[in-house]
Amino acid sequence: MHIARFSLNDRIHWGIVEGDEVRAIEGDLYDSPRPGQRLCALSDARLLAPIYAHANKVVAIAANYGDRAGRDGPGIFMKQPGTVIGPDDSIIYPRIGRRIIHEAEVGIVIGKQARHVSVSDALDYVLGYTCVNDVSANELTNNDVGAGMSLRWKHFDTFCPLGPVVATDIDGDNLRIRCRVNGQTQVDGNSANMLWGVAELVSWVSDVMTLYPGDIIPSGCPASRDNIGDVSRSRSKESASSATPS
Amino acid sequence: MHIARFSLNDRIHWGIVEGDEVRAIEGDLYDSPRPGQRLCALSDARLLAPIYAHANKVVAIAANYGDRAGRDGPGIFMKQPGTVIGPDDSIIYPRIGRRIIHEAEVGIVIGKQARHVSVSDALDYVLGYTCVNDVSANELTNNDVGAGMSLRWKHFDTFCPLGPVVATDIDGDNLRIRCRVNGQTQVDGNSANMLWGVAELVSWVSDVMTLYPGDIIPSGCPASRDNIGDVSRSRSKESASSATPS
Repeated sequence: MHIARFSLNDRIHWGIVEGDEVRAIEGDLYDSPRPGQRLCALSDARLLAPIYAHANKVVAIAANYGDRAGRDGPGIFMKQPGTVIGPDDSIIYPRIGRRIIHEAEVGIVIGKQARHVSVSDALDYVLGYTCVNDVSANELTNNDVGAGMSLRWKHFDTFCPLGPVVATDIDGDNLRIRCRVNGQTQVDGNSANMLWGVAELVSWVSDVMTLYPGDIIPSGCPASRDNIGDVSRSRSKESASSATPS
Repeated sequence: MHIARFSLNDRIHWGIVEGDEVRAIEGDLYDSPRPGQRLCALSDARLLAPIYAHANKVVAIAANYGDRAGRDGPGIFMKQPGTVIGPDDSIIYPRIGRRIIHEAEVGIVIGKQARHVSVSDALDYVLGYTCVNDVSANELTNNDVGAGMSLRWKHFDTFCPLGPVVATDIDGDNLRIRCRVNGQTQVDGNSANMLWGVAELVSWVSDVMTLYPGDIIPSGCPASRDNIGDVSRSRSKESASSATPS
């Protein structure tokens, strides 16, 4: 069976391709779909990607404090959507990867669609700022194949608490950043020490991808290597940097 | 101004926090929001992540052919949602990064919510397979800061053509994979040579994150290092592996 998503007369449909025809899907798309009535000729359908992929995204910045070392710009990677939780939700320890880093970061919240934005214009595209905990299972950084490409350690469900609010009318390039886990300070820095500031980050990311209102750019953690916790040390629950065994 | 997303009586709202109260937003959230009427006490609102992040996702597999070299498993990274285009849409060359690799891969399409799925059960969670072109701007792999963490070269808009269809009732572990760019074969392999097969990949990814119906796992490219193209060689448009200057 060949399942397709396509547009026809400006509407988007799912269907089943049979020969040169497209038929409707009877039953649920993901649960025993069957071909139903004829919808159109295959040649009249414009085939689309068979996926819904549009929602807000979290575009994280790697290594934005410390030594710039002559590189072109900071690293960019994605937090998968299932990492996002609210500020009072619990981080779930993965069954694998028990040594957890809490990377407290300033999250830049986009307010207007942005593509190829200049550094001088970039702040016009920022709605405000929120708190991000870019949680990481640090011990898993080097276990996987892939020339440093594996970000499994960043992608566990619940590994991106956001909030509590979007603060507007503040200077994102001069914010104190603190993270406490069970009362113990793990991160204490200031976004004034970022290698690339808010405007440069928005411009840099917008040269790679279109940013939409509500997208968030965590701007990197001031002291990510100094805040390694593990299950035995941070078992109890705490807001925003909470960690709870699964 | 402090903009919050929160749940109240099982409904989700956006609002503006003022002192110990939450007010409605007048005007558009992303265009001059103003505080309106009182909605509730802040203590009655359960604050949520200030983002909508739920949609299907593309969870890519790195380095799943060649030398396994004793590692635990393959690399995992995300394609950002804006990379996804349909099978007949044009790949847009980035202004930066002109040397383009076309990584043709088998895309595993998830049919049922999956979390901590065993290898022996994993195929029950697969709806079928689709074609993926994991387009990459290869020259940008090493220019960014971040200990190999930057995936900027994978994240340009339009860098993940998908489709044309989801094929069910076929063996994902024995599929010929070919990619032609302007008539020239750039990839020719078989998924039988994957280091980790379909069931192992679904299980491996599900140990990291919840997979939902419609999520897609591109399973790695058989010969990604052999298919470097550039603007001068692949200027004309072609289906699924098309490349068009912006």
